[in-house]
Amino acid sequence: MSNNPIYAAIEAGGTKWLVSVGTSPETAVQTRIPTEHPEVTVGAAVDFIAEQIKQQGAIQAIGIGSFGPIGINPDDTDYGVIGKTPKPHWTGVDLFSTFSQFNVPLKIESDVNAAALAEAKSLLPNDEGRLIYITVGTGIGAGVVDNGRVSNGVHHPEMGHIRLPHHPDDNYAGHCPIHGACLEGLACGPAIIDRWGKDLSTLGSSHESHDIIAYYLGGFAANLLLTYAPNYIVLGGGVSLTEGLLSRVRQQAFKQLGGYLARFNQADGLGAVIQAPSLDTLSGISGAYLLAAQALQAHCA
Amino acid sequence: MSNNPIYAAIEAGGTKWLVSVGTSPETAVQTRIPTEHPEVTVGAAVDFIAEQIKQQGAIQAIGIGSFGPIGINPDDTDYGVIGKTPKPHWTGVDLFSTFSQFNVPLKIESDVNAAALAEAKSLLPNDEGRLIYITVGTGIGAGVVDNGRVSNGVHHPEMGHIRLPHHPDDNYAGHCPIHGACLEGLACGPAIIDRWGKDLSTLGSSHESHDIIAYYLGGFAANLLLTYAPNYIVLGGGVSLTEGLLSRVRQQAFKQLGGYLARFNQADGLGAVIQAPSLDTLSGISGAYLLAAQALQAHCA
Repeated sequence: MSNNPIYAAIEAGGTKWLVSVGTSPETAVQTRIPTEHPEVTVGAAVDFIAEQIKQQGAIQAIGIGSFGPIGINPDDTDYGVIGKTPKPHWTGVDLFSTFSQFNVPLKIESDVNAAALAEAKSLLPNDEGRLIYITVGTGIGAGVVDNGRVSNGVHHPEMGHIRLPHHPDDNYAGHCPIHGACLEGLACGPAIIDRWGKDLSTLGSSHESHDIIAYYLGGFAANLLLTYAPNYIVLGGGVSLTEGLLSRVRQQAFKQLGGYLARFNQADGLGAVIQAPSLDTLSGISGAYLLAAQALQAHCA
Repeated sequence: MSNNPIYAAIEAGGTKWLVSVGTSPETAVQTRIPTEHPEVTVGAAVDFIAEQIKQQGAIQAIGIGSFGPIGINPDDTDYGVIGKTPKPHWTGVDLFSTFSQFNVPLKIESDVNAAALAEAKSLLPNDEGRLIYITVGTGIGAGVVDNGRVSNGVHHPEMGHIRLPHHPDDNYAGHCPIHGACLEGLACGPAIIDRWGKDLSTLGSSHESHDIIAYYLGGFAANLLLTYAPNYIVLGGGVSLTEGLLSRVRQQAFKQLGGYLARFNQADGLGAVIQAPSLDTLSGISGAYLLAAQALQAHCA
């Protein structure tokens, strides 16, 4: 028998769930389940974990990084419960109660916070310092990790909806149904397609869209450097994969900071801070493993 | 002899220093010293503390909340050293070395962080939750306290320099020598006088300036609620004292959030969160006492 605890880890995404059982994400047995009716998807996840317990032996904790909104404060009655979501049948789904049936310590976070946790473990292995993970895709979200722990306030951050100045050449009114031209309304994937008819990777790199999106994401990064002073900002999600975008975002952040923060008085300084995900697409499931480990640790403390 | 430890606490402001020696800010003996040449001002502070030690007995720790920029990471070589400042003779002044001569535990923070600590102790007495203290005066600064501790990243926050959308009726190019129209460049005291010739309290409450400044400060508060999700935002500093401004800031924050955060789907919700300082003008010196207590606690742990 291995000395390493066996965990169940779930990356519960809005389009697919990844369920993994084992001692680490790299060596685990895992399955992908499409996000359909919650009874089907959650049921399949429960069955998979139960089957793996038969195969591998008892699990010691469960970690879940879930799409949201989701209650993430263990002291609240909505802990692990999906909030009001346009996804049919998912509002009110109680992941905490469902996965409590395995009678092991359980920790649930937002999917973005779980990915942030994994990136922080990778870039700040001694758990010293602060990292912000941003995902730019269908929406824009961000999670903060401070000294190895997810750092929420009263609720998890909703940074996608902050306001920034409009790019002077961008007349787009914005895509957010609530705020119009908030950050997400200006720079998420659907806002790009709505404005220019294609996604950023398909639009040529000389197309104005690249500078405009970099202006918003660079402005967001600059604001975060001023407000949170993190060691790292990791730019993830589908839109961020666009070739050349990361470099433009760094340039824009540098320009907008104007040399104000001494550590960024050269553009190189931002190259070390604003980074692509170091775990590639493994951030989410790796974060779920870290949540399981934290749940076990808290239980044993 | 009292059971309560005797502390020396300093609110080291850019125009005056407040030096207080005793067991609490309310009962202490204190003196005001104009911020002149550092040799004069710092020397007078040292002499006052030495004299009070003769009168009251040994002090057990020192806490200092200082104008900045100032190094606040005890692991860095610039800890307690004033950074590059336009104030003549003050760049490089080493408060840490100077006040180490008393051979007691010493803790130094920015003046804004010290005030934030005191407001948090007042509004979150169990040290649970998160508070952001904003000061709007000659400049705009903010400090974050999380569960009873100042929460800095790599450096203390520099939130005054974030960018926000321009008010549609405000054509002012901004007052910040570095960024022009950053938040501070648009809404600090000197920007108001530069734009309209008077300070906000003197301009009538029906003057457009009130709505414009509330638009920026309300937008700042809305962004902080989305990024930090604090329990409280405390709005301090000279400009914030303007009659009626706090109420307008709440209204603007409510409007700009657009009901997105469920806890603020009624304007009343913001009344409980965005508040005037509960300690009035005592925040700074009270924070310095809390820093002294933390220094002593860390020493004894």
